[in-house]
Amino acid sequence: MSSSSDITALQTPPSCTADFCLIPLGTPTASVSKEVAEVQRLLKKSGLKYSMHSAGTTVEGSWDKVMKVIGQCHTMLHQNGVVRIQSDIRIGTRTDKKQGFQDKVDAVKRLLEADGKLDGEE
Amino acid sequence: MSSSSDITALQTPPSCTADFCLIPLGTPTASVSKEVAEVQRLLKKSGLKYSMHSAGTTVEGSWDKVMKVIGQCHTMLHQNGVVRIQSDIRIGTRTDKKQGFQDKVDAVKRLLEADGKLDGEE
Amino acid sequence: MSSSSDITALQTPPSCTADFCLIPLGTPTASVSKEVAEVQRLLKKSGLKYSMHSAGTTVEGSWDKVMKVIGQCHTMLHQNGVVRIQSDIRIGTRTDKKQGFQDKVDAVKRLLEADGKLDGEE
Amino acid sequence: MSSSSDITALQTPPSCTADFCLIPLGTPTASVSKEVAEVQRLLKKSGLKYSMHSAGTTVEGSWDKVMKVIGQCHTMLHQNGVVRIQSDIRIGTRTDKKQGFQDKVDAVKRLLEADGKLDGEE
Repeated sequence: MSSSSDITALQTPPSCTADFCLIPLGTPTASVSKEVAEVQRLLKKSGLKYSMHSAGTTVEGSWDKVMKVIGQCHTMLHQNGVVRIQSDIRIGTRTDKKQGFQDKVDAVKRLLEADGKLDGEE
Repeated sequence: MSSSSDITALQTPPSCTADFCLIPLGTPTASVSKEVAEVQRLLKKSGLKYSMHSAGTTVEGSWDKVMKVIGQCHTMLHQNGVVRIQSDIRIGTRTDKKQGFQDKVDAVKRLLEADGKLDGEE
Repeated sequence: MSSSSDITALQTPPSCTADFCLIPLGTPTASVSKEVAEVQRLLKKSGLKYSMHSAGTTVEGSWDKVMKVIGQCHTMLHQNGVVRIQSDIRIGTRTDKKQGFQDKVDAVKRLLEADGKLDGEE
Repeated sequence: MSSSSDITALQTPPSCTADFCLIPLGTPTASVSKEVAEVQRLLKKSGLKYSMHSAGTTVEGSWDKVMKVIGQCHTMLHQNGVVRIQSDIRIGTRTDKKQGFQDKVDAVKRLLEADGKLDGEE
């Protein structure tokens, strides 16, 4: 009767937004820009929508595709000689509406712009 | 020539350790224990090795299986009426050795126990 | 009129639960057990309540004390020669009730034990 | 003899880059744009350098100032009626060089632009 009794019938979410920050361990230098650039190149090939910022990379798509490409980033860096990788992933799913990552920023900016207009009126 | 030129040939890692903390949004109460219990029940059915602590749940297995079950946790809670879910996932992979999550704790405890022995000798 | 107009009057929360995972970058080896052991020793000296698990360490106390000790962990490891450190911190505060990190685990376990009793009745 | 024997003598890092994602729990709606806008207003008043993106906000400054303002964000939202708040914070410190968050993005972009030039040569 419970929806969770047959786990094999449970699909993963059809869409999600994930923001991940990948950290190589045990590398000769403390710089990670080379690895982050490799990740960007891989994301470009994936065909998924993504956006890099200073603390990570945001990527959109189905749960399976997004998680697969992050896993492929790990494998690629391992193949390049990095023996250990730790990623932090913030991932969100919602059923109430479809919202791309740019929509989220826009929603906040609209609220902040309203402040500006009020300020300007004085 | 580059190992990353053919993205479809890149596999996800054969093993990983993930620690995730799942947060339901827009729920009537601030309590999440009901949702966390549902997650534990689903993990039990998955057959993967897992361990709950106060700030999340650690789970071990192949990248694909681990990520699939976390995605299924999202879907299950959505089916139970939660419209939005945000998870934080710390995920690590390594090629230098196979280390279960209990091994990691044990390695630190051995170092700390050595302190204790030195303290006791005084 | 707004409560946030005078930022200097805003206190940080009197209590919080933080779970942090500290990662040293650019170290000779991929192992972090030595660094994690150092962190545990520092936490012990801090007098705060804490608990290590395989994916991090949970610590309880006032926002300022908790954040100070995590910062001190960074400084200590820098003094030991680690040039770059990245931490992931999950931190929660609530005003509806005082709940220690053990209480959170207990609340979920009570729900799961109820399952067991039902199973046993069959 | 150990540098960590007197914990009170340990300072927190003089500079850091933190990226945080704040999630209110038990709110009537699944939308968080109102809360995120409040956070942006508070950051503006703090005088610290910050930048919002779709998955969080990055802020730079001394460890103490950065952590204080994130704590003040929690307190402000609690005062506005949010009973429980969970934040994920990625925080980095380094002693090898001073690097602002824009510098990090620029370093990766330079590497990626070199790709483009090579592509263009064909």
